[in-house]
Amino acid sequence: MDTIPFWRRLFVEFLATALLLAAILGSGIMAAKLSNGNNAVALLGNTLATIFALYFLIEIFGPSSGAHMNPAVSILMKWRGALDGKMLGGYIAAQMAGAVFGACLANAMFDLSVWQLASNARTGAGQWLAEVVATTGLLLVVLKAPPQKTAACVAAYIGSAFWFTSSTSFANPAVTIGRMFSDTFSGIAPQDAPAFIVAQGVGIALAMGIDRLLPRNASA
Amino acid sequence: MDTIPFWRRLFVEFLATALLLAAILGSGIMAAKLSNGNNAVALLGNTLATIFALYFLIEIFGPSSGAHMNPAVSILMKWRGALDGKMLGGYIAAQMAGAVFGACLANAMFDLSVWQLASNARTGAGQWLAEVVATTGLLLVVLKAPPQKTAACVAAYIGSAFWFTSSTSFANPAVTIGRMFSDTFSGIAPQDAPAFIVAQGVGIALAMGIDRLLPRNASA
Amino acid sequence: MDTIPFWRRLFVEFLATALLLAAILGSGIMAAKLSNGNNAVALLGNTLATIFALYFLIEIFGPSSGAHMNPAVSILMKWRGALDGKMLGGYIAAQMAGAVFGACLANAMFDLSVWQLASNARTGAGQWLAEVVATTGLLLVVLKAPPQKTAACVAAYIGSAFWFTSSTSFANPAVTIGRMFSDTFSGIAPQDAPAFIVAQGVGIALAMGIDRLLPRNASA
Amino acid sequence: MDTIPFWRRLFVEFLATALLLAAILGSGIMAAKLSNGNNAVALLGNTLATIFALYFLIEIFGPSSGAHMNPAVSILMKWRGALDGKMLGGYIAAQMAGAVFGACLANAMFDLSVWQLASNARTGAGQWLAEVVATTGLLLVVLKAPPQKTAACVAAYIGSAFWFTSSTSFANPAVTIGRMFSDTFSGIAPQDAPAFIVAQGVGIALAMGIDRLLPRNASA
Repeated sequence: MDTIPFWRRLFVEFLATALLLAAILGSGIMAAKLSNGNNAVALLGNTLATIFALYFLIEIFGPSSGAHMNPAVSILMKWRGALDGKMLGGYIAAQMAGAVFGACLANAMFDLSVWQLASNARTGAGQWLAEVVATTGLLLVVLKAPPQKTAACVAAYIGSAFWFTSSTSFANPAVTIGRMFSDTFSGIAPQDAPAFIVAQGVGIALAMGIDRLLPRNASA
Repeated sequence: MDTIPFWRRLFVEFLATALLLAAILGSGIMAAKLSNGNNAVALLGNTLATIFALYFLIEIFGPSSGAHMNPAVSILMKWRGALDGKMLGGYIAAQMAGAVFGACLANAMFDLSVWQLASNARTGAGQWLAEVVATTGLLLVVLKAPPQKTAACVAAYIGSAFWFTSSTSFANPAVTIGRMFSDTFSGIAPQDAPAFIVAQGVGIALAMGIDRLLPRNASA
Repeated sequence: MDTIPFWRRLFVEFLATALLLAAILGSGIMAAKLSNGNNAVALLGNTLATIFALYFLIEIFGPSSGAHMNPAVSILMKWRGALDGKMLGGYIAAQMAGAVFGACLANAMFDLSVWQLASNARTGAGQWLAEVVATTGLLLVVLKAPPQKTAACVAAYIGSAFWFTSSTSFANPAVTIGRMFSDTFSGIAPQDAPAFIVAQGVGIALAMGIDRLLPRNASA
Repeated sequence: MDTIPFWRRLFVEFLATALLLAAILGSGIMAAKLSNGNNAVALLGNTLATIFALYFLIEIFGPSSGAHMNPAVSILMKWRGALDGKMLGGYIAAQMAGAVFGACLANAMFDLSVWQLASNARTGAGQWLAEVVATTGLLLVVLKAPPQKTAACVAAYIGSAFWFTSSTSFANPAVTIGRMFSDTFSGIAPQDAPAFIVAQGVGIALAMGIDRLLPRNASA
């Protein structure tokens, strides 16, 4: 990966994050359309579409850019020394831009207003705690998964966390930004996004702390 | 694969595409029968049956013919130099014939008229954009997936795209043809098929363009 | 496997088939209890439980006995020379006994009459064709799957075929026998079983015929 | 693993079991909230969240502590000589503490009383038999799964057993304890827990007995 030109890696982060958001939000729109208010079935469809996207995106773009698609992961990779510090800003900018583009693309595919703001309220101590847990868990998975199984482990983690956290596990500041632009059950009202991002920041710190207590084994 | 007689490879493409269409359309019929109008549940069943079929078909027939089952993939393979140009026409013909046979087989298994035409309208700018995106995404997966994981990546991609595109992601001219012969929620009215195939053609071109911007890495 | 005593291999076939039938029929009972007549959801649960069972049973017992759990597979293995002809009768007897035991075990776990006969009618040309297709497809998967991926391919195949065949794809004479002893939506009335088994026999012959047309490649 | 300090291994067992219980119980709460009494859909969501959690936890923590998360597994590992007898008590204590902590964490994330007792009755001969079968099956999977596929096999097993056993397959004394602290459909009333744990003990003994009848093959 080190010999790949920086602009190509940023393009991959942009493209991968755009596809991830298109998957999360497009499947949310589809699920809401088809489920007639049966929210558990809608979340099943949304979950499967999201984790399948994570799986193939990490498998196909991992060798190109790391396929972080998530500022929290990029910050963790810089902390581990696996991402050059000069690249961090570029990675995060590409992820943010990709997330917004992906949200707009999902809206366009479903003949909705390309540019829209979410009204779905997501707030409260339970959900903020959930985002701390969700982000911590995701980063532990990234740190400890066997390298050949990172894609499968991340997909499995998010598939579980969509259901076991009260926030449905954003665990990703770029996803949080992108979800602001989809007025569906997958969205988040803009005024609720900052607290989610703060909670994700706490999750990053907590993951770094827990990592010091874990064994340094072969697959770490 | 190069030493395998051409006719055997065409037979495999025919058989694999027939089974794929039987899976897509048969599961659509089953899902419609059982779901009492709960379309999200029907799409869940249809999605799982389709991606499981893609997975095992690519695993078992990949070494024989490449298991393209899709003219868009065969065109891409010819462009990459991985399919002899003289074989392209044969591949596409075998896929088309297999798709129609598979649709008829699904109808027969469910005691429906073997030969029927779909009436399900699928049209509009959103769905055409969706087919461009769906085809582009599929071909990027085919181009960049680690060779040992192509089957899993293609299955995961379609599992996601069934939900995140408004067209439920045909992404395949042979599938589009085959779906004309099933008058169920999985079908497509014949008059709507040409625009879908044009959009898939645009997706092929877009995938080739994006591929030039991606890194040439080990798994490419 | 050849050095494993015959009686141990038969015990494994008995145990594996018993667990498979317990999974198919137990999950059918659970699904019927919970789904309030939503048959598509019931079939989703039944499908997942069945294919997860196939996956782990083939992975854990494959090295011991081949984990056939299916007379059709044992007959195919004898035809290929992978099963000693003297063992075929023992394998089939062990599978049949295991299937009946597994059905009774499922009934006991759900506080139903341990010994009961199914009343669920399954008959007609469409379903018989479906059993031919289902059995042929399963045996092609067994013949052509990469050895390390047999469990995943068989599970994926059955997960697809449960939905794309009108018979929900028994594809297994021992499963057909076992399902006679469960009076649930997973069951089959005893008078309908013989025609299913005949259709499965036709599927065995068809798979052998198709196999001659397929390439002999590395993973065959 | 042998060179990893004991306290780090215990911390991993605590953390992994806490996340497992948070996943089982948090997804149970989410499923109950969203499913409007459609229990089959609720169990689907609960099943997927649980098995995805098992998968990633075993993959990421297996090299550190074995990722038992289950006293029954630790007892089996001691019996096989794969866990030092002096460590058994510590493992079980860490698992129990983690289970209770995970239950409280799930409650907190969903803004419920952190400390609550379950009222869900789970009793009767059918369910006790189910726990014997569920535990026996899980331990056979642990004993016979190919080492590289243990995570996938355990996840598949539990995904199947959630549906094919009338008890939804606890198969784990620590999970049984943790589920006492969640007053949801995933919970178990404290007075019903001891009989479940006794049944799990019978399952341990039965697995050890069956293991003597199985072949000693390469993957054992």
